[in-house]
Amino acid sequence: MDKILRINMGAAGGPKAKTEAVGAYAGLGGRALTSSLVAKEVPPTCHPLGEENKLVIAPGLLSGSAAAMSGRISVGCKSPLTGGIKEANAGGQPSQMIGRLGYAAIVLEGKPADDTLYRVFISKEKVEITPDPGLKMLGNYAVVEKMKAAYGDKVACISIGQAGEMKLSGASIAFTDMEQRPTRHAGRGGVGAVMGAKGVKVIVVDDSGCPVRAPQNPEAFKEANKAWVAGLRKHAVTGQGLPAYGTNVLTNVINEAGAYPTKNFMWGRFDTCAKISGEAQAELENARGGAGSATHGCHRGCVIRCSGTFYDKDGHYLTKQPEYETVWAHGGNCGIDDIDAIAMLDRLDDDFGLDTIEMGATIGVAMEAGVIQFGDAQGAINLVKEVGKGTPLGRILGSGAAVTGRCFGVERVPVVKGQSMPAYDPRGVQGIGVTYATSTQGADHTAGYAVTANILGVGGKVDALKPEGQIELSRNLQIATTAIDSTGMCLFIAFAILDQPETFQALLDLINGFTGAKMTGDDVTTLGKNILKLERDFNLKAGFTRQMDRLPDYFKREKLPPHNVTFMVKDAELDQVYNW
Amino acid sequence: MDKILRINMGAAGGPKAKTEAVGAYAGLGGRALTSSLVAKEVPPTCHPLGEENKLVIAPGLLSGSAAAMSGRISVGCKSPLTGGIKEANAGGQPSQMIGRLGYAAIVLEGKPADDTLYRVFISKEKVEITPDPGLKMLGNYAVVEKMKAAYGDKVACISIGQAGEMKLSGASIAFTDMEQRPTRHAGRGGVGAVMGAKGVKVIVVDDSGCPVRAPQNPEAFKEANKAWVAGLRKHAVTGQGLPAYGTNVLTNVINEAGAYPTKNFMWGRFDTCAKISGEAQAELENARGGAGSATHGCHRGCVIRCSGTFYDKDGHYLTKQPEYETVWAHGGNCGIDDIDAIAMLDRLDDDFGLDTIEMGATIGVAMEAGVIQFGDAQGAINLVKEVGKGTPLGRILGSGAAVTGRCFGVERVPVVKGQSMPAYDPRGVQGIGVTYATSTQGADHTAGYAVTANILGVGGKVDALKPEGQIELSRNLQIATTAIDSTGMCLFIAFAILDQPETFQALLDLINGFTGAKMTGDDVTTLGKNILKLERDFNLKAGFTRQMDRLPDYFKREKLPPHNVTFMVKDAELDQVYNW
Repeated sequence: MDKILRINMGAAGGPKAKTEAVGAYAGLGGRALTSSLVAKEVPPTCHPLGEENKLVIAPGLLSGSAAAMSGRISVGCKSPLTGGIKEANAGGQPSQMIGRLGYAAIVLEGKPADDTLYRVFISKEKVEITPDPGLKMLGNYAVVEKMKAAYGDKVACISIGQAGEMKLSGASIAFTDMEQRPTRHAGRGGVGAVMGAKGVKVIVVDDSGCPVRAPQNPEAFKEANKAWVAGLRKHAVTGQGLPAYGTNVLTNVINEAGAYPTKNFMWGRFDTCAKISGEAQAELENARGGAGSATHGCHRGCVIRCSGTFYDKDGHYLTKQPEYETVWAHGGNCGIDDIDAIAMLDRLDDDFGLDTIEMGATIGVAMEAGVIQFGDAQGAINLVKEVGKGTPLGRILGSGAAVTGRCFGVERVPVVKGQSMPAYDPRGVQGIGVTYATSTQGADHTAGYAVTANILGVGGKVDALKPEGQIELSRNLQIATTAIDSTGMCLFIAFAILDQPETFQALLDLINGFTGAKMTGDDVTTLGKNILKLERDFNLKAGFTRQMDRLPDYFKREKLPPHNVTFMVKDAELDQVYNW
Repeated sequence: MDKILRINMGAAGGPKAKTEAVGAYAGLGGRALTSSLVAKEVPPTCHPLGEENKLVIAPGLLSGSAAAMSGRISVGCKSPLTGGIKEANAGGQPSQMIGRLGYAAIVLEGKPADDTLYRVFISKEKVEITPDPGLKMLGNYAVVEKMKAAYGDKVACISIGQAGEMKLSGASIAFTDMEQRPTRHAGRGGVGAVMGAKGVKVIVVDDSGCPVRAPQNPEAFKEANKAWVAGLRKHAVTGQGLPAYGTNVLTNVINEAGAYPTKNFMWGRFDTCAKISGEAQAELENARGGAGSATHGCHRGCVIRCSGTFYDKDGHYLTKQPEYETVWAHGGNCGIDDIDAIAMLDRLDDDFGLDTIEMGATIGVAMEAGVIQFGDAQGAINLVKEVGKGTPLGRILGSGAAVTGRCFGVERVPVVKGQSMPAYDPRGVQGIGVTYATSTQGADHTAGYAVTANILGVGGKVDALKPEGQIELSRNLQIATTAIDSTGMCLFIAFAILDQPETFQALLDLINGFTGAKMTGDDVTTLGKNILKLERDFNLKAGFTRQMDRLPDYFKREKLPPHNVTFMVKDAELDQVYNW
């Protein structure tokens, strides 16, 4: 990973690719690389869909190696949704493959002269950029089928659906999983719209002939990897909860805690949520899928294996096992307790290339506006189909909750910096409220997952319903997360490294064994702080202020049942998150 | 005008009116009063459609007196379009009548518990607030007809159309003119959406039994008024140009200057603009309207008389004579040179309650997106009708150009702080570019009309195509305008007072004769500065930054034919506008 592939989509005479040495970005991976490159090369006040924005796709520092869990990929750009810097990451196969091809990043630059749509093919031998009008307005599933037909069943795809082509702010970028299905998405912030603005429908990655990336110190690396895997298998969350039920194991937990945002954040409990819980989902999948229903990883090298397959009533593949946040977004948040309908919504989102969190929150706002009624599962399916068709209603919804609130005159819109809140009510999990408010990314649970100490009792214990201790908790998690997002490691490793010092040490040993460096825990913290600071500086230059580090006013006013709490962390405290 | 009428639409048990002494706001009128009240009483970070926002409707300091030209009315609130403070003003009859009823302001507060729609009737004897479901989703013309039937032909109406009821950010508030038609609009910033959020469809004003407001010094006032009227009649713009052709006298002038934004700000000249010029419009109106085509004022006491009536092909009333900015917005900006179509669009905007500038700019963006083709007049009419019908497409368009750009993935969206630029390209009139960029109001020509010295040779001469001198010009005009907007005087008086010192003195004498004060020219400047500072402080507290005091990037990059100029005023200079 000593080179960067830059593709100038606006070059005179048509798109041009060139390979550069990694240069000043050497030693950076994932979010550290995407955010550094965006901060250095993208003017903060540029239009997100304009020629000056860049789309950066970067494997993690360890991606492409034999390190377990190292297959996450980062996407960076200026966000059409938030107007600030954006890093969205995903699992799937491309990260390991791009790492093995030797690229630290693929960067899409410039703006095409017309609306020609391109596919990009990257292998050891060549980079090909080809106009492909036959891909226009196809869904991700159809795009991947076409690429499989053209390039075989070993390649991986990075693609956008109709939403990205339409440059909608809710558009995601899809990464194919181990089954070559477009189910892993860099969902948040409208990164798919930026890929659409660059005129790239799909990037096909073929790592044939590329070996696994070799560690600098093979023995130390191998030893560390063993301890690493053992540590992950030992922890209750990464070794038992996630493999058994996937992320949806959280539904009953968060609902029980009274922090499950229900019907557009009106209540903290959803009375029929057991019907869409991970337990119910697993039972259904086991019954329908038979032998195929075992959980598995979303990329090679995963040992947590929280993924699964969702089969329809006839036992046919419908979509991957919907994640907790997706089940919440299209389920409880919309008053829907029909797991088949939720799975269909997940499938549609994946196919059209939409962020499931943004779409669920958006439909919740549309329901509050009376476009359809809360609980109307078929209505919700119809709404998402509007996005795929590109109707005016679909364009509103595909632009996210904030635009939908504007168009329908709704005041209660659960967004920060224009991005929808995920599946944890900030009144019921005050620590995650701090993260939503202050993250450089807009409302984002993965940016500093305070649910750990607030609800799960992982990494300490901080009372979820009180403001005390939340600033420090969120700050520390935001710093750690930023570092983890740079390694290519799945964020779920955090459960184990927060609770088990020896597993954190194994991770450090793994990194050091691979790179030959001598990174300490303090270095990890420093890396996280540095990248967060870069991101925050970008946002300040883009015009962000402390007034944007706030939840919408109504979270301070409306009490959330059943605990009847408001968000109580003071504005002045929120302003302290970045004072470290 | 020593009292304020406050109507709490969210009061327990239903809306409640109370009259208070003017108190701390004594001596303030128009924009000075609306902005002072909003700055003091509205939390800058509140939701514009929420209970904490207030809609303030205030006559000017001299409104209701016999002073010529004193019939403007100000509307203030936090804007749903810009997210900052908003003052939009209009002509029409209500200002004089509210002044005579003794109200310095009418303030709508709180938020109704449900979606009941109310009418408010205000007379010398009473204030009545009545649920009136029969008004739901009526256009302004139908609302006014109903009110005339109920209250007679002497009342004036302040109303919203369908757009305001839907709380769309492009919604205006209509004020009836001398013919009791809803043709004068506080158009900008979505003030109609705030009235809609308050649940008030119409305020009917009846000043029966209320005398003209008496001056403190009747003799001095009378003398000053004579000199005032004489000065206005003497100046070429206020005495000849505006009365002869209305504001549309500008079409040929601005086009000739190469600053006429054509087809979504692509060119500075529109080749067939003569067909929609004031001259062509006047000829048509004279031919169709016969004796009824004489120009007249939009309110009693006007001596400039720039208003007119537009008759359709059969000689029937269609709308008022469309203003220059409306003719541009729906005309040149959309490549449309059909004056009948433009008049129909004006009528539809007035009826649905939409800002004609925002709608024209929005349709230009939709045309750039390919929704319809540039030049498609019937297509444009159909688009505006979508807003009236409340379809999803209509909701996008009615939310303004910025939301339309988001939903259709368009980069070239001519807005500042979310508000569309009016009829002067900032590259061809660099002084107005400074006003667009830095005004507290978002892009707004009336906030500091640098077209005067840049193009018209009024109030000095500053080269329109160069950056030099524009900061000072815009700053001084913004200060003066803020003061004028506080008097209730029509802004067109600026032409005469900028060029004729004795006419400016007559204005001061008029104010002093009325109030008994001893205001000097310096005091006017101080008032303007103070109010601007209040407005800017509100915006800063709402989270505005200097990055929002900028034109979109493409104005610095794309050259505007025929002069092939970009906007050349530097960012650092823009930051000096408020350093006085």
